[in-house]
Amino acid sequence: MIIVMKPGAPKEAVNNVVKTIEDNGLTPHLSEGSQLTIIGVIGDKSRLNNRNLELAPYVDKIVPVTESYKLANRKFHAQPARIKVGKAEIGPDTLALMAGPCAVESEEQIMLIAQAVKKAGANFLRGGAYKPRTSPYAFQGLEEEGLKYMQEAGKATGLYTVCEVTSLEAINAAVKYVDLIQIGARNMQNFYLLKEAGKCGLPVILKRGLSATLEEWLNAAEYIMSMGNENVILCERGIRTFETATRNTLDISAVPALKSRTQLPVIIDPSHACGVRAYVPALAKAAVAVGADGLIMEVHNNPECALSDGPQSLTFEQFDTLARELKAYAALSGRTL
Amino acid sequence: MIIVMKPGAPKEAVNNVVKTIEDNGLTPHLSEGSQLTIIGVIGDKSRLNNRNLELAPYVDKIVPVTESYKLANRKFHAQPARIKVGKAEIGPDTLALMAGPCAVESEEQIMLIAQAVKKAGANFLRGGAYKPRTSPYAFQGLEEEGLKYMQEAGKATGLYTVCEVTSLEAINAAVKYVDLIQIGARNMQNFYLLKEAGKCGLPVILKRGLSATLEEWLNAAEYIMSMGNENVILCERGIRTFETATRNTLDISAVPALKSRTQLPVIIDPSHACGVRAYVPALAKAAVAVGADGLIMEVHNNPECALSDGPQSLTFEQFDTLARELKAYAALSGRTL
Amino acid sequence: MIIVMKPGAPKEAVNNVVKTIEDNGLTPHLSEGSQLTIIGVIGDKSRLNNRNLELAPYVDKIVPVTESYKLANRKFHAQPARIKVGKAEIGPDTLALMAGPCAVESEEQIMLIAQAVKKAGANFLRGGAYKPRTSPYAFQGLEEEGLKYMQEAGKATGLYTVCEVTSLEAINAAVKYVDLIQIGARNMQNFYLLKEAGKCGLPVILKRGLSATLEEWLNAAEYIMSMGNENVILCERGIRTFETATRNTLDISAVPALKSRTQLPVIIDPSHACGVRAYVPALAKAAVAVGADGLIMEVHNNPECALSDGPQSLTFEQFDTLARELKAYAALSGRTL
Amino acid sequence: MIIVMKPGAPKEAVNNVVKTIEDNGLTPHLSEGSQLTIIGVIGDKSRLNNRNLELAPYVDKIVPVTESYKLANRKFHAQPARIKVGKAEIGPDTLALMAGPCAVESEEQIMLIAQAVKKAGANFLRGGAYKPRTSPYAFQGLEEEGLKYMQEAGKATGLYTVCEVTSLEAINAAVKYVDLIQIGARNMQNFYLLKEAGKCGLPVILKRGLSATLEEWLNAAEYIMSMGNENVILCERGIRTFETATRNTLDISAVPALKSRTQLPVIIDPSHACGVRAYVPALAKAAVAVGADGLIMEVHNNPECALSDGPQSLTFEQFDTLARELKAYAALSGRTL
Repeated sequence: MIIVMKPGAPKEAVNNVVKTIEDNGLTPHLSEGSQLTIIGVIGDKSRLNNRNLELAPYVDKIVPVTESYKLANRKFHAQPARIKVGKAEIGPDTLALMAGPCAVESEEQIMLIAQAVKKAGANFLRGGAYKPRTSPYAFQGLEEEGLKYMQEAGKATGLYTVCEVTSLEAINAAVKYVDLIQIGARNMQNFYLLKEAGKCGLPVILKRGLSATLEEWLNAAEYIMSMGNENVILCERGIRTFETATRNTLDISAVPALKSRTQLPVIIDPSHACGVRAYVPALAKAAVAVGADGLIMEVHNNPECALSDGPQSLTFEQFDTLARELKAYAALSGRTL
Repeated sequence: MIIVMKPGAPKEAVNNVVKTIEDNGLTPHLSEGSQLTIIGVIGDKSRLNNRNLELAPYVDKIVPVTESYKLANRKFHAQPARIKVGKAEIGPDTLALMAGPCAVESEEQIMLIAQAVKKAGANFLRGGAYKPRTSPYAFQGLEEEGLKYMQEAGKATGLYTVCEVTSLEAINAAVKYVDLIQIGARNMQNFYLLKEAGKCGLPVILKRGLSATLEEWLNAAEYIMSMGNENVILCERGIRTFETATRNTLDISAVPALKSRTQLPVIIDPSHACGVRAYVPALAKAAVAVGADGLIMEVHNNPECALSDGPQSLTFEQFDTLARELKAYAALSGRTL
Repeated sequence: MIIVMKPGAPKEAVNNVVKTIEDNGLTPHLSEGSQLTIIGVIGDKSRLNNRNLELAPYVDKIVPVTESYKLANRKFHAQPARIKVGKAEIGPDTLALMAGPCAVESEEQIMLIAQAVKKAGANFLRGGAYKPRTSPYAFQGLEEEGLKYMQEAGKATGLYTVCEVTSLEAINAAVKYVDLIQIGARNMQNFYLLKEAGKCGLPVILKRGLSATLEEWLNAAEYIMSMGNENVILCERGIRTFETATRNTLDISAVPALKSRTQLPVIIDPSHACGVRAYVPALAKAAVAVGADGLIMEVHNNPECALSDGPQSLTFEQFDTLARELKAYAALSGRTL
Repeated sequence: MIIVMKPGAPKEAVNNVVKTIEDNGLTPHLSEGSQLTIIGVIGDKSRLNNRNLELAPYVDKIVPVTESYKLANRKFHAQPARIKVGKAEIGPDTLALMAGPCAVESEEQIMLIAQAVKKAGANFLRGGAYKPRTSPYAFQGLEEEGLKYMQEAGKATGLYTVCEVTSLEAINAAVKYVDLIQIGARNMQNFYLLKEAGKCGLPVILKRGLSATLEEWLNAAEYIMSMGNENVILCERGIRTFETATRNTLDISAVPALKSRTQLPVIIDPSHACGVRAYVPALAKAAVAVGADGLIMEVHNNPECALSDGPQSLTFEQFDTLARELKAYAALSGRTL
């Protein structure tokens, strides 16, 4: 932490800050220049948590120099994490391919889709049973029944299953039926839910909030990890910007930027990022080229009649073609699909 | 809903869309121009919920013309709502003045602050017992104990009390101790929590999500109202933009824009909006001038040592001065404070 | 400037940075902590302009501590500037009221509007002769002819005139006819134009770019001032955000935030900020309450037929009512109108 | 254009709008529903340019259905453009590889870099002679002298040369020395400059403004094209968002979104998009995978001492490695490099 004093701060004001630092068991380092003075405090800044030095007289600003997340911080975990789900691994050597409908609509529908995406080469089945919808009047999901159908489809095809959870009840149900849980964008800073996810024992896909900085996102991962669950997979799914040509703006630079900050795997959801089926294949290829550890995409047996997110869902044929093309991109990045 | 066809769409493609509309019990209206055809569908668009016409051949785009929120829609509720809390009313004739610390820290602290803000002219006491903090290592609140202290402080001063809730447990505790609950920005689209808030019987202050559009915010209010609770107060608290000179960007235009869309009261939180104590008084005055129905502000007995958000908290003296100035602004807007 | 080294940076890497600093005639201040080392460099950082220390081995990041703008920096100009235009002054004691059409359409139109806004209480006449329009097929302005009409209307009414300039030719014409020039949002970082504006001798209203930070905006003002023209007035006119309910998002917090950073006057353009006529009066009052030094608003004799920006223009009657109300708000802020 | 009336609009209000449409020589199409009426107007909406129907009584909103750009609109130009520069072509079959320093610093420097990037496989040389810098005190470029050095380096290596222009003077100089001109992000809506660029005879690389929508960007291209110059290449270089981990946010989805809207080629500048050298290679690969027609990147002989943008410049060795890797990605997309 660095404290920048205002130009012309009197000696007393500087001494006051120095004393506060020392009183809290830390060592200040003064740099006095011709225009202004800066005071470095290196070490455990949490000791100053309840001292708001911004408000001390003649303090211009406080500049943090260390991150508040530790368990998710690459500085202390040099090797990329490898998250195991059954025989699959999400990490630096593989490309996880997760596909399925936005919402589980029926036993038949999810089984049909599971078979199609398995055949095309996916190794994970996605499907929503608890749907966070903007309007209360839109379809809200089949809940526990949907989870059961997911489990059946997973068993029948050998796909690992992933489902979004939106409450403690949903977590308690999900652990009985699926292999991974997902925290959605709208709940990325639902700290209550994050802590519960940290206790549930399953790997967690943590989607980025619509306007979350990388720093906030990694702190959200830290919430899960601080409860003892280190199996967190980050999922970039588009951020909110001024541009309306796409549903959200895929922040593809987040992949290299995250990889320099954290050891956790990073996957991309091109379907929610753009919201337009026709752009999904191009973005999926870009995701592999940029170094993502996996993809999660919406595929539907009949997108024109999907109960949720049809416009961004691929048909079986489109997914099949895309999965084939992705193999070549995965090979270029030294990953197996 | 309006369906815009691509230029040169063949007759069959148009007929296909027309048929889908008719098959769902709605009436299409065709406008055929020299360059393109548009098809109007007026009425209950929810009948087309599972038909994704964006994907039909030669469809260029779908333009919605009606809002999905009904209970929160001014079109159907011409008179501004007046929400009663004890003898107080939040609505068009009054300026609600809510003040208190970011976090309840102790019995003495909240009592001291309650007395000070009451004396200055506030009629509501705010204070956090369940704190959503970016980092899991920051102070997380006193929880139920904090709620009890709030209740005591409210009783002793005659202030109505408001507390943020972050889980069902928190709601269940809050209903025992406080007069209003608040859903924070990070939980604005925690639909599970919204539904529970809609069942709890207390008025709800619904803060705007960091990147929520007015449309999404009103749909979140609709979630609460659709469970039978019409006492929702919207609170603008700054949105996330590129500008970093302030913690968030106060979207002051949201006040007139909301008032043209909804009957619900709108209050402003200038403290979280800017994050800088020195800017709060100017923004509070602007909030009254723009037509807000109330203010919620952070006031602390010792901001330099506050456990949360000290840098944006007013001292007793600052709040006292501000409250006096606000009376003149309230009078200009025809409101009593 | 502060250089933060990565944890575990070897002694040599630190020495390398220290040497670079010393070789450029500056003095480094080391703070060595248990986890990391930071190096303070206070003084003329421009000496390091061509040394990109971010790239030196084991450097984590560079944190600037001083602003690059000097002439526009309040740290060196404690008193608020008072910009004189004829007998008028734009500064801390007055509320400048600038009104007129988006575009000058004809001699009669601008004369009619000038008389109306003068009567209502405006002291400046705005009107565009060089219109920057999104589409090349939209009305582009009357150019020099429009400036002449502005001059006539100014003379007839005693209003001071302000006109946007978009090129050197426009500046050369404007200096012959009007009292102030304006640099529009889209040209805020047209550094060529800024330098020319700095040489022209007239006061300059510098609008904020659609996505300009305060720092960038003040640096743009510095371009004008560095050419010898200190009469710069900053105009907040809304920034671009994700919200589409208003044309732009009025960043009202920019007023107190600027006043803590610069001595220059700040005015607000509520018309462009929201783009909706019905919201303009509320925002204008908020602008006065927040401490703005003036307002610039669009007023038209027949908004339904305006060639540009009709939907955000006030009628004569609306402006008259608003100007009367603003007097009370100006009085509360200690300003004369 | 579609006009949506408010619920309960009386017959007269509807008739009033209908009459305005008919008076301007257009045909209205009414769709009267149980709740509201919509009025379609298909055809040349410019006839209504000076009629602001938003302001007519009982009009709720106006929804445009056609784009204002025509020459840059794929609807009227089905085939992707192929822009020829000497023997090179920028278009669907090739990957244009543009590289060079941010700023031309000396005759030797640009020659050295030209030789290195040519050897690695680039076919275009970039270099800035007129530098738009945030601060007036930063290095502003060698101007015409820099252009001469560019020309020499281009002749010596066979590379085609591209240089940013910031004024008419710069354009007049550039046409004497270089093969393409570039309009930078800050001047994307400097309509005066766009028109001059449209008259200069050279192909134009048009960078996207920091907060420009695709619609605004294509309208800016339309300005250039409407002056008779159809050789416009769009360059995505990152947009401004809330995220500060990267200098800007690369909007990679803009590539497929633009390709569905325009026939013009689209290239990507990963250097400015992220501002961090270490992320450039990953983003460059993603750009090829997503379907970009080319790349423009910063390469410097000694990034640690570059006068501008050193932190985002690749070394010769890094560029050489990257160019080799990009060949494999270009091959997967069916492009030659």
